[in-house]
Amino acid sequence: MNARPSLDVIFKPKSIAVIGASAQRGSIGREIFDKLLAADFNGPVYAVNNRVPVVHSVPTFPSVSAISGPVDLAIISVPRDAVEQVVKQCAEKGVRGLIVITAGFKETGAEGAALESRILEIVKTNNMRMIGPNCMGVICTDPEIRMDATFAPTVPRRGNLGFASQSGALGATILEYANSLNLGVSMFASIGNKADISGNDLLEYWKDDDSVSVILMYLESFGKPQRFVQLAREVSRRKPIVIVKSGRTAAGARAVTSHTGAVAGTDAAFDALFAQCGIIRANSIEEMFDAAMVLANQPLPVVSERQATRVAIVTNAGGPAIMATDACGANGLPLATLSPETQQALRENLPSAASVKNPVDLLAAADEKEFQFALKQVLGDENVDATIVIFVPPIVTDAEKVAQSIAAVTGEFKKPVLGCFMGVKGVSSSVEELHRARIPTYAFPESAVAALAAIDRYARWRSKAPGAPVSFEVNRDTAQEIINKAKLERREQLSDAEAFDILQAYGIPVAAYALCNDWKEVRDAARQISFPVALKISATGLSHKTEIGGVRLDLRDDHELRRAFDELHEAATHTLDSSQIRFLAQHMVEGGREVLIGLHAMPNFGTLIAFGLGGIYVEAVNDVVLRIAPLTQTDASEMVQSVRGVNILRGVRGAPPVDFHKLSAILLRISQLSQDFPEIVEMDINPFMAFDKAEKCVAADARMRISMD
Amino acid sequence: MNARPSLDVIFKPKSIAVIGASAQRGSIGREIFDKLLAADFNGPVYAVNNRVPVVHSVPTFPSVSAISGPVDLAIISVPRDAVEQVVKQCAEKGVRGLIVITAGFKETGAEGAALESRILEIVKTNNMRMIGPNCMGVICTDPEIRMDATFAPTVPRRGNLGFASQSGALGATILEYANSLNLGVSMFASIGNKADISGNDLLEYWKDDDSVSVILMYLESFGKPQRFVQLAREVSRRKPIVIVKSGRTAAGARAVTSHTGAVAGTDAAFDALFAQCGIIRANSIEEMFDAAMVLANQPLPVVSERQATRVAIVTNAGGPAIMATDACGANGLPLATLSPETQQALRENLPSAASVKNPVDLLAAADEKEFQFALKQVLGDENVDATIVIFVPPIVTDAEKVAQSIAAVTGEFKKPVLGCFMGVKGVSSSVEELHRARIPTYAFPESAVAALAAIDRYARWRSKAPGAPVSFEVNRDTAQEIINKAKLERREQLSDAEAFDILQAYGIPVAAYALCNDWKEVRDAARQISFPVALKISATGLSHKTEIGGVRLDLRDDHELRRAFDELHEAATHTLDSSQIRFLAQHMVEGGREVLIGLHAMPNFGTLIAFGLGGIYVEAVNDVVLRIAPLTQTDASEMVQSVRGVNILRGVRGAPPVDFHKLSAILLRISQLSQDFPEIVEMDINPFMAFDKAEKCVAADARMRISMD
Repeated sequence: MNARPSLDVIFKPKSIAVIGASAQRGSIGREIFDKLLAADFNGPVYAVNNRVPVVHSVPTFPSVSAISGPVDLAIISVPRDAVEQVVKQCAEKGVRGLIVITAGFKETGAEGAALESRILEIVKTNNMRMIGPNCMGVICTDPEIRMDATFAPTVPRRGNLGFASQSGALGATILEYANSLNLGVSMFASIGNKADISGNDLLEYWKDDDSVSVILMYLESFGKPQRFVQLAREVSRRKPIVIVKSGRTAAGARAVTSHTGAVAGTDAAFDALFAQCGIIRANSIEEMFDAAMVLANQPLPVVSERQATRVAIVTNAGGPAIMATDACGANGLPLATLSPETQQALRENLPSAASVKNPVDLLAAADEKEFQFALKQVLGDENVDATIVIFVPPIVTDAEKVAQSIAAVTGEFKKPVLGCFMGVKGVSSSVEELHRARIPTYAFPESAVAALAAIDRYARWRSKAPGAPVSFEVNRDTAQEIINKAKLERREQLSDAEAFDILQAYGIPVAAYALCNDWKEVRDAARQISFPVALKISATGLSHKTEIGGVRLDLRDDHELRRAFDELHEAATHTLDSSQIRFLAQHMVEGGREVLIGLHAMPNFGTLIAFGLGGIYVEAVNDVVLRIAPLTQTDASEMVQSVRGVNILRGVRGAPPVDFHKLSAILLRISQLSQDFPEIVEMDINPFMAFDKAEKCVAADARMRISMD
Repeated sequence: MNARPSLDVIFKPKSIAVIGASAQRGSIGREIFDKLLAADFNGPVYAVNNRVPVVHSVPTFPSVSAISGPVDLAIISVPRDAVEQVVKQCAEKGVRGLIVITAGFKETGAEGAALESRILEIVKTNNMRMIGPNCMGVICTDPEIRMDATFAPTVPRRGNLGFASQSGALGATILEYANSLNLGVSMFASIGNKADISGNDLLEYWKDDDSVSVILMYLESFGKPQRFVQLAREVSRRKPIVIVKSGRTAAGARAVTSHTGAVAGTDAAFDALFAQCGIIRANSIEEMFDAAMVLANQPLPVVSERQATRVAIVTNAGGPAIMATDACGANGLPLATLSPETQQALRENLPSAASVKNPVDLLAAADEKEFQFALKQVLGDENVDATIVIFVPPIVTDAEKVAQSIAAVTGEFKKPVLGCFMGVKGVSSSVEELHRARIPTYAFPESAVAALAAIDRYARWRSKAPGAPVSFEVNRDTAQEIINKAKLERREQLSDAEAFDILQAYGIPVAAYALCNDWKEVRDAARQISFPVALKISATGLSHKTEIGGVRLDLRDDHELRRAFDELHEAATHTLDSSQIRFLAQHMVEGGREVLIGLHAMPNFGTLIAFGLGGIYVEAVNDVVLRIAPLTQTDASEMVQSVRGVNILRGVRGAPPVDFHKLSAILLRISQLSQDFPEIVEMDINPFMAFDKAEKCVAADARMRISMD
């Protein structure tokens, strides 16, 4: 599989056959053929049609086999039931790349899926690559290639975007929208059913392609999320990836499923995945392009993990500046404090009523010279990382001149500049002016700020050391033995003691405990581990202890312990064989802050590690952060800082902060455990007791479930 | 003051003088004069200018006094220092309405504010009304009036919007934006510094005006929030109010303050205020118009308090339908389940591959007839309350015909229909077609859904019984005596016992307590109120008891009580005179769920009532709901159901729900207390212990602070 051909066979062919090129105008086969010619593809484009001799004044071939010269890429738009035969012919002809436009495969049910599998088999056997089926085509604007093999009505501009869309219809919309924003593409692919070439393949291909500097994706499903995480982490360090992942909600996921037959993961898992990989998640196509305008045209702000982008606002109207300031606050972007020198320069050169603090309000009468002067001062201020220029055309000012003056000055500074030209007559020509000058421009301040905030998060992610999964010295053999034994006994649920033993084998401290057979052992154990203790029934396969009244907490002396033992023993004998009954005595840890540490394996996705606040209240508000294993140090330390109620861990009402470093280390050890034993499909340490001192932190309870597969 | 003239003197004058009408094109005084003439104002428009004899070919008058006929309305655009004199002349002339365009008043500092006050005094004394100063003018499109007294470049359409903008620059943008969406205005006012006429006045004026069916407001500050609450509650029952309130964040509020000199309340208080009044709060001008398009053109969905708008989606593309479904999920709008009859009709008349469940996917090849058929079926289904039609133009379909077919069918059903025509070439003419047919149309599914969700919230608010403040029988005299005594002694902070006594006087149960002077009294009290007890130092003016170690909790017998007493007594004598020392013994309530009930008076705003979850964890995540007093029953019962962690109150881990009705009643009693005694500026019952049984619910601790004013 490693030797499969590069995607050059799709994006950079030297010759193309359109199989199903049609004489009928408006048909898909005809549109694609026409667009290839209109884009002046740099090589022969053959029309294959076994019914008509000429298409678009070009003589046709009855089959791909009939073409005498070589064919690198075949674009297939024939009826579904003819596709398999055509693909075979392509294989025989030595075609290396296929774009299958035809629909009616996996997305329609079992029969279509079987046909798709057979075609994929032919593709793999013959060392070909395939886009689709059920797609809208591919574009490569490389001047040496000039291939527009889609039936979208738009003629794309040359630019630096790589775009992959799992929806054909949205693909067309996206191309048009990009054009309207003066954003050009380098390569575009509608990937349809992703039978062969997936989003991951495109990421890998575009990673090293210098013509692509921003990657945009519309996705409804992920085939191999773990591979995606690896790839995306690497790619995001070089170039930004912006993704719209739909099917977020349960209802949306059902709609996806019926749409493409893909299994949708839960949205929280995708949030985790994207956060880890530095991916900019957009909630809509509009948000995606709001961010892409900056990424494709402007430098990233120079920021650090701790210091967000400090924003300056230059405006000629108060209201929109307030709205931009509000939006900065809501998005966590600080307003820059202008240096005294900048303020003085502004004061000396602007009307006295102008505001020289940030937002810099030039007042309604400001002309293009004042805009240019102010912008130059502000961009030159070392306290400013990015600037938003707001312009509301009053009657006296020429919007186009203002746009020109802004464009003239932005290139001097390596800082992002965003325009907000609010919609009054005469603005649209000035907006075009800004677009030509590669200044991203928005109709409303909120959109500009939201885009900048997304870029800020990405820039800060990139400023962080990548970190790596950490390998601790652990006692893997012990864990292996316990798991082997459980598998042998066909027990999915491990006992408390087994779970504790595995945790300890992986260096995760557990509150002192002992497994006992009778009262005497219980009493001795309690004295040794010290009161107060909890006493539990611990029989094989007993996961919900509380349901048979199998737990007694906070036992403070022998007397309380004896009574608890007798009650538990009595209750247990009703349901269990006496040979099964064991007692687990465990020291009750007091005074710590309860957190939850968990692990959950999602089929076709990967293993999620969870960190949250424990206790009944926070369980009810579900304050949990997820990441996909393996965790890096950066992931782990982000997790423990990202719960909403982090202040509880930092210490309220005079309490000292817990040892965050210790908590991160525990998460990394759990991550290692999950990688060593993928058969552990569920684990909850709840509660883990966190303290200010590392040596006091311990797991107080744990559940672990393994898979029998 | 009751006899002040109606705003007809501003919006419906019979004659107008433009004072400061200028011969110079592009100047504000000239633009306004020209626009009045261009709009064909139905009456004489006099140009007043004491330097040039003619403006725009019309002879001028040197002063308003020189005009022989009556002048109803004067529009003043003269240098700031001339305004006072001009206003005096207007008063003498008998002018009833003023629009003061000139800036340089309160927004610039103390001197400007003083001048503004003097002008307002003249206005009031002479029974005039004034818009501004520092504004952009006023529009009334009534065919009998035809007044465009602004210097905005846009010529507004006639329509059913009433629009008030506190920002002049945004006002111009808004007029242009409305035009581009085919939304017309009935009346528009840029209200500037709101010296006389405020947003409240406009609400009151538009409440009974049938030409205004939707009210839109851009506001940076509220002058009289309590009056606003009263008015808006009443108006919202008749017609929707959509508000953008800027200055949301601390930074934004600072920008507002420097911009208009207004005092910004905290944003949470405004959220409370808007929620109570059924106001649709928009976060941006774009959101405001996304909602206004539906409100101005479509019926409200027929919904109830409990049943949200059930949405049907009709589409010709899968991807955008998934995105719409996601957005519905995220916005709490359920997807309608189509009836079997609807599904069958669709199945019989659509291609077999089409999806006849919701979303109804007509597939890419769908033509206008299929759209029309599907839309008709879906709108006729009694399980559907609103429909979103998504159209992505494929090559084969005529977008304009689809738009026409949608327009043809929507009028038959009294249900809102929203269009989402995604941007590909050829769409813009079809979007205009839809706008003409009064179908709100969006470029992205998320915007359509967000607009519908806002309308849904409003429609559900209107479906609720308004409720009214409730008056309980209380012992007002007791509370009055305690407050009088504290005032006499100049004590802002009431003692625990005083606070408890006031609560009990208002029917709010308090955990049994006794105020004691010595050990014997403490011991006897503890026995009577029953152990466990808490013991506190309760000296006059001692608000932070914990700081001198003045509280001992969970005392379980005489022995523990005695030790606590001795310790407290010892600690207290270090800082207090022995004659001041009192002890408060109180029964410790166990097993309830802790909630917080509070009251906070905000200057220039009103009194906020707070309800939240108590306890250290939830305090850290700040889970509190605010409303403005006086509360209605509806407010109170909404509050107790709206905290994020409401599940804790509903009961987790097998616990029964708390008595929500009792909690609402407590909130209403607190509301009554706040109205009876505005001098109570701060109160916290923290914790109030909630139980499943009403009679067990009690306040366990309370603080109360009064103002000396």
